[in-house]
Amino acid sequence: MPFEITILGSNSALPTSDRYPTAQVVNLLGRFFLLDCGEGTQIQLRRNKIGFSKIKHIFISHLHGDHYYGLIGLISTMNLLGIKTDLHIYAPSEIKNLIQPQLDFIKGEMTVNPIFHPLDFKKPRQIFADKKVEVLSFPVKHSISTCGFLIHELPREANIRRDMIEAYKIPVAKVREIKAGADFVTPDGDLIPNERLTWPPFQPRQYAFCTDTAFYPPIAEVVQNVDILYHEATFLNDMREYAAKTLHSTTTDAAEMAKLTHAKKLLIGHFSARYHNLTPFENEAREIFENTEIAREGKTYTILSERETRS
Amino acid sequence: MPFEITILGSNSALPTSDRYPTAQVVNLLGRFFLLDCGEGTQIQLRRNKIGFSKIKHIFISHLHGDHYYGLIGLISTMNLLGIKTDLHIYAPSEIKNLIQPQLDFIKGEMTVNPIFHPLDFKKPRQIFADKKVEVLSFPVKHSISTCGFLIHELPREANIRRDMIEAYKIPVAKVREIKAGADFVTPDGDLIPNERLTWPPFQPRQYAFCTDTAFYPPIAEVVQNVDILYHEATFLNDMREYAAKTLHSTTTDAAEMAKLTHAKKLLIGHFSARYHNLTPFENEAREIFENTEIAREGKTYTILSERETRS
Repeated sequence: MPFEITILGSNSALPTSDRYPTAQVVNLLGRFFLLDCGEGTQIQLRRNKIGFSKIKHIFISHLHGDHYYGLIGLISTMNLLGIKTDLHIYAPSEIKNLIQPQLDFIKGEMTVNPIFHPLDFKKPRQIFADKKVEVLSFPVKHSISTCGFLIHELPREANIRRDMIEAYKIPVAKVREIKAGADFVTPDGDLIPNERLTWPPFQPRQYAFCTDTAFYPPIAEVVQNVDILYHEATFLNDMREYAAKTLHSTTTDAAEMAKLTHAKKLLIGHFSARYHNLTPFENEAREIFENTEIAREGKTYTILSERETRS
Repeated sequence: MPFEITILGSNSALPTSDRYPTAQVVNLLGRFFLLDCGEGTQIQLRRNKIGFSKIKHIFISHLHGDHYYGLIGLISTMNLLGIKTDLHIYAPSEIKNLIQPQLDFIKGEMTVNPIFHPLDFKKPRQIFADKKVEVLSFPVKHSISTCGFLIHELPREANIRRDMIEAYKIPVAKVREIKAGADFVTPDGDLIPNERLTWPPFQPRQYAFCTDTAFYPPIAEVVQNVDILYHEATFLNDMREYAAKTLHSTTTDAAEMAKLTHAKKLLIGHFSARYHNLTPFENEAREIFENTEIAREGKTYTILSERETRS
């Protein structure tokens, strides 16, 4: 029941010799979501041994180059590998015009079929859903139109207790309705209440991705009680004026957002190229929100399900 | 009197975890020429401590993505750094249409002024020249229109001998014409022939860059006696049929071209992602052309001037 976030890049726009621009892969129950696609994403995917054919959904927060310049290279490589797939790209609508000429130039050889889904910057929207998983986009506050993303499991049915199935000899045909909330009546006419037959459903797991953005309280209207909040912290606190001017966040902004959204854990990233040592970021944020970690490239952060936690 | 080639990337199209696509920087007498600009070039420039503001001339051999996808990121970063410069881009004419939408999207903030110079794929052309240096493009043979580049010093004047200046008390006013070939007549009427007054000029140094291409003899009509020939060798010899089909070269093709052009040294690169150990490339090529080296990323290859060699 994987819910894993692998950081491919956690740097801001200017390149450094040892950090890549923003990109991360979320594996939720076998669905691989790529969040942002800065230059070098395909190399980082290779380094982290994530197969290109797994990527079918790409979410681009905004159109500053450090969040999308790796997209054409990734698509081109998927093509060279002969991967036949629809590739859903959830991004600001302008992205199509920006990369279509390059896509057209490789056309005729295209095995990948990019499908563009424009983001809405006015209000939160469901942008992906299947039986088990949902992705929402929501506006954040940056110098150009930018969305955050909330990736979560959908609420599940209750877990039926195997010991009760045996004790009351519940027929298989009844299991589905009990899971959905029904009581059970025994052949003798005794009513066994649902609460006795089931364990409460596992809490759906949630991950939120907020970059690039200033501190923006409306985020908390969508993001609540997430297991991990990824929030940009481009600058340390002594740069707070410059952060405000460029509509980026400081460590304190990120930590305050973790408090406001009642996150269980805060991951910070999108570090300015001026910083080599990232420890001060962790220290500053932890003064406000203890469970903070630096988003380290090549590291995978796992959200365990309650079942896994219990076992 | 630097003539230095720094390899930023020597891989072919598919990414590997430890090699970048094609890009290299040539520093000839303080002129920095960027040859090809695969994805990740800006990161490699940073790693190799080459200042972005030095780059004013970029040469793109052809429009397969692994040779130009890093261009937009590099320009964008030069812009973010506030570098005010004309940036000359010598490339297939279509490049403008491919990246103009992305350039337009960051416009308003542009400090860099890209100037596109279309390449000619019919015959060799001078595409850059100043007092000391010349760059030629010449067609090579690939699956799409592709050029190689020859970068060389222009022929110099003879070097006047200081010992002769003193011996014949040659006035400063005469030095220029003697350097240009004149004899000298002493106050006593003796004619001193030019050969006695000068050392022959230093041999102009030359570097040729040929990628991507099949073995193509017409290259030798332009490239002769170069100090270093960079020639692609995408495959080992056992893949010669596939190389021919994709219009790439094997180690043998590259080594034969080094012989045909009377190169002093052969550098091979553009290795297929299927190879991890590159030693067999060197071994195979050396059977035909002894002075062969693998183009290693992060390594700088220096062409010494005769003056430096003598001292």
